[in-house]
Amino acid sequence: MPHLGFTLLLALGASLGAAFPRDALKKSCSLSKYQFLVPHELKAVQKMKEQFEDIMLLSDRKCNTRLFHRKWNIAELSVPDRVMLVEAELDLATAMLMLPADPAFAKTRQQPLTFLTQAREDLRGCVATEAPSHQPSGKLRHWLQKLQTAKKTETTGCLEASAILHLFQMLNDLRCTALREQCT
Amino acid sequence: MPHLGFTLLLALGASLGAAFPRDALKKSCSLSKYQFLVPHELKAVQKMKEQFEDIMLLSDRKCNTRLFHRKWNIAELSVPDRVMLVEAELDLATAMLMLPADPAFAKTRQQPLTFLTQAREDLRGCVATEAPSHQPSGKLRHWLQKLQTAKKTETTGCLEASAILHLFQMLNDLRCTALREQCT
Repeated sequence: MPHLGFTLLLALGASLGAAFPRDALKKSCSLSKYQFLVPHELKAVQKMKEQFEDIMLLSDRKCNTRLFHRKWNIAELSVPDRVMLVEAELDLATAMLMLPADPAFAKTRQQPLTFLTQAREDLRGCVATEAPSHQPSGKLRHWLQKLQTAKKTETTGCLEASAILHLFQMLNDLRCTALREQCT
Repeated sequence: MPHLGFTLLLALGASLGAAFPRDALKKSCSLSKYQFLVPHELKAVQKMKEQFEDIMLLSDRKCNTRLFHRKWNIAELSVPDRVMLVEAELDLATAMLMLPADPAFAKTRQQPLTFLTQAREDLRGCVATEAPSHQPSGKLRHWLQKLQTAKKTETTGCLEASAILHLFQMLNDLRCTALREQCT
């Protein structure tokens, strides 16, 4: 798997999170707080994913394509490319976490949804500040196109399951984006 | 969720596994080695689960029921009941991990399959030694009946996905069974 596991993210968050206050660098680009993800946010995502796995098979989830499959590693992308990638991923994830849901899942997803929505807003702020007219590279453009097509052609059940099952991949992408040159 | 997460199992395994040699109590009932699960086995299961999540949506996985749903906690069961429960869970899991698969997944699942097959054999040994004529309690009998019905009525795609998505629940059940009175 190209992404770090939950455990590793948790360990990094626990050991180093306190060294990066939430508002560091906010005036220029506020992604530094995502360099080390906070354990309680990761736990909330893990809890939501487990709860989703418990109910997801009761609905039709079949996909025609693997939405989050890619043959390259995010570290190969430029930082502005990464920002665009994660913004697109979080756009999908937040939209899927706002679909109608049973009360138990709706409650559990609230904390992850708040966190992911904030991250997406911070990414948007970074684009506006740092790369307002950035053009995606060929490999990113191809992936974004594939995602756009999937949003039109795949079922909601497929899109929802794909997004939730890949949340840790997205969080790792977010972390890699925040780490800039330190993510290799 | 009623089961411990991967991280907690990993931490327990890492810190305490060495204190319980693999052959302890083997002559009577060899489950003590499952009181603290070995980190590399948990990692192998986690890797397999992630790989499965990447490909599972390409097939029809819809279920009519939640196979692993139960309203009681395994700690409420007697130890012989727990042994029967986990044996049934691992019977399904090992059968599902022997289905035809693409070469990459077939390779990744090999280590978990070996581990789970050994655990199932050890459970069978325990039944033969400690409770050869045990009759399941009402709540366990009801759950076993539900599982037997699902095996006949649900699709293979559903059964495979249900089993793999619930492997950590099974591992926690295995651990609780091995802990006997210490699992509460």
